[in-house]
Amino acid sequence: MKTRAAVAWEAKKPLTIETVELDGPKHGEVLVEIMATGVCHTDAYTLDGLDSEGLFPAILGHEGAGIVREIGAGVTSVKVGDHVIPLYTPECRQCKTCLSQRSNLCTSIRATQGKGVMPDGTSRFHCEPAKPQGNQIFHYMGCSTFSNFTVLPEIAVAKVREDAPFDKICYIGCGVTTGIGAVIYTAKVWPGANVVVFGLGGIGLNVIQGARMVGADKIIGVDINPAKQEMAKKFGMTHFVNPTEVGTDKVVQAIVDLTGGGADFSFDCTGNVNVMRQALECCHRGWGESIIIGVAEAGKEIATRPFQLVTGRVWRGSAFGGARGRTDVPKIVDWYMEGKINIDDLITHTMPLEKINDAFDLMHAGKSIRSVVVF
Amino acid sequence: MKTRAAVAWEAKKPLTIETVELDGPKHGEVLVEIMATGVCHTDAYTLDGLDSEGLFPAILGHEGAGIVREIGAGVTSVKVGDHVIPLYTPECRQCKTCLSQRSNLCTSIRATQGKGVMPDGTSRFHCEPAKPQGNQIFHYMGCSTFSNFTVLPEIAVAKVREDAPFDKICYIGCGVTTGIGAVIYTAKVWPGANVVVFGLGGIGLNVIQGARMVGADKIIGVDINPAKQEMAKKFGMTHFVNPTEVGTDKVVQAIVDLTGGGADFSFDCTGNVNVMRQALECCHRGWGESIIIGVAEAGKEIATRPFQLVTGRVWRGSAFGGARGRTDVPKIVDWYMEGKINIDDLITHTMPLEKINDAFDLMHAGKSIRSVVVF
Repeated sequence: MKTRAAVAWEAKKPLTIETVELDGPKHGEVLVEIMATGVCHTDAYTLDGLDSEGLFPAILGHEGAGIVREIGAGVTSVKVGDHVIPLYTPECRQCKTCLSQRSNLCTSIRATQGKGVMPDGTSRFHCEPAKPQGNQIFHYMGCSTFSNFTVLPEIAVAKVREDAPFDKICYIGCGVTTGIGAVIYTAKVWPGANVVVFGLGGIGLNVIQGARMVGADKIIGVDINPAKQEMAKKFGMTHFVNPTEVGTDKVVQAIVDLTGGGADFSFDCTGNVNVMRQALECCHRGWGESIIIGVAEAGKEIATRPFQLVTGRVWRGSAFGGARGRTDVPKIVDWYMEGKINIDDLITHTMPLEKINDAFDLMHAGKSIRSVVVF
Repeated sequence: MKTRAAVAWEAKKPLTIETVELDGPKHGEVLVEIMATGVCHTDAYTLDGLDSEGLFPAILGHEGAGIVREIGAGVTSVKVGDHVIPLYTPECRQCKTCLSQRSNLCTSIRATQGKGVMPDGTSRFHCEPAKPQGNQIFHYMGCSTFSNFTVLPEIAVAKVREDAPFDKICYIGCGVTTGIGAVIYTAKVWPGANVVVFGLGGIGLNVIQGARMVGADKIIGVDINPAKQEMAKKFGMTHFVNPTEVGTDKVVQAIVDLTGGGADFSFDCTGNVNVMRQALECCHRGWGESIIIGVAEAGKEIATRPFQLVTGRVWRGSAFGGARGRTDVPKIVDWYMEGKINIDDLITHTMPLEKINDAFDLMHAGKSIRSVVVF
């Protein structure tokens, strides 16, 4: 079949809207009509050529929502007509990691996904006529939601309720789950805990509302941009620390003072390794845990004195919020529908596929929290 | 009263055996006759002048066992005649940390303990006649077990069974608990886990027997000294990796290969920050946890790429094995008496107080695992 898609032909070039060839789903795969997709920093990271493992030409996008239109042989967990959210972190429930019940980082299709192809080693996307480098177009993060139709393994789709609006719940495919999940599944923040969030972008705001949802006490936001305060308060932030005002070297002490000893949990949503250190060191002696969510620049390292850990602080990270996609994503959709979390106010821009490059421009200009493309 | 004690008059000088003045126990304090004391690397660290907070003159020693001979006003948890192990990490059961039930690092007397004095701000030890700097002799780590008699707060003694031999259970006052506790209380190693131990000195051997006690599967020891193998096997090591043989830069891969993906738990017992990094990075993606036990040189820092944490590894530390002294130390004494753990083979040398400097010499020469002074 043919499908409209925004294709990234090479790094640092705008996407172009094309009609591409899409093979139908093979064994264990499903064809999904993408109804809406968010545009995430990770898409921009790859498009900007910063991802050393980025492949081109590719159809980017990993934060979508849509409807199953066809199923391949052997598919049993979803049927035609089901509403689904594609999962860049699948959940096979069979691999060592899934069976460990200690991590969401399913490894069953990791190798091929990293190579931009389906589990059988081939791509479903092609361009006609072929370009000099051939006619294969790579998948991206196993999702390629910048295409109106895409093919995914059935273990990489989460079936969700049918009354949820695609143009909102697509954000649960990455940002919402990454932030809220880090609070609930990775950190397991308890009611009454003091929580500090470094970086008040989309992920940070989702961490804040996750902390509010589980009954955190103080929810302290840290950002160098005072304009972030208003929105963060709306999502549950109770205190604000501006490193530019208190002095970068006094941020840790400011948080220790605010919390009467240190944070029970801190979250880095900046990707800055110096901030990651502050996030660890502002944690409470004895038990404070710091969770790294932000993605650092290639080659950058985190550092601290081991004394920080020996005296009880814990350093950990979170990917996709520690959420098991097929199991947990439908619950987060429920929370949205029940009004426990706010997604609407995070989606600041909506546009048709033809305007998708505007989404990248808005992101780079810092004008959007999340842009959503509606097909 | 007067008591015999080994006094450290200044850094880098041998201890001298003296008769010093000891004030009786004040409110909430107990007088303990020390029957035996281990000599630990931490005593040597301070005596060698490496501890920037070290105070002199002082009576060192923090790994003892003895009998309560007198109690001060208000003491209710122990009585004259009770057998006790002094605790450099007390357990008041009243402070924020104790009440949190999330850490053993009781803070109730931390400030005065760090200053070498009792909670009322004064020392119980004095020398007569006074030296030029006065007649006060500092306490050390709240214990000062290199004195035949010492005074401690009642919250800093663990009451233990009376049939346990002092010259063995004194080692539970530090090394045994630090190693076994890190496995049981900090890491919570589960049956069937793969465990890696970096550094096969006294702490490492105790980590190994802790791992064996809780039913670990593979217990891999890492040390550059092949002579450590024999003893480590006796304590439960199942595999040995010598960085000198496999290549320092291939240690992580060797462990990943041996464990089929990485360690469930690793323990650094070396104090070397480069080894601490290896210990983290040999952990299993998704859930492996690395616990720092070793004390690093002043100013040294640990580092890694944040990706190691984002993909599920956890970095934490352990002090006094995460054990709550009054609650957990008596259990470890029971484990020793029940034959669940082996202490006898770790105590390689025993000597009278007059020979205490030999214990430091044996340690520096690498000839002892643990020397115990018997009064």
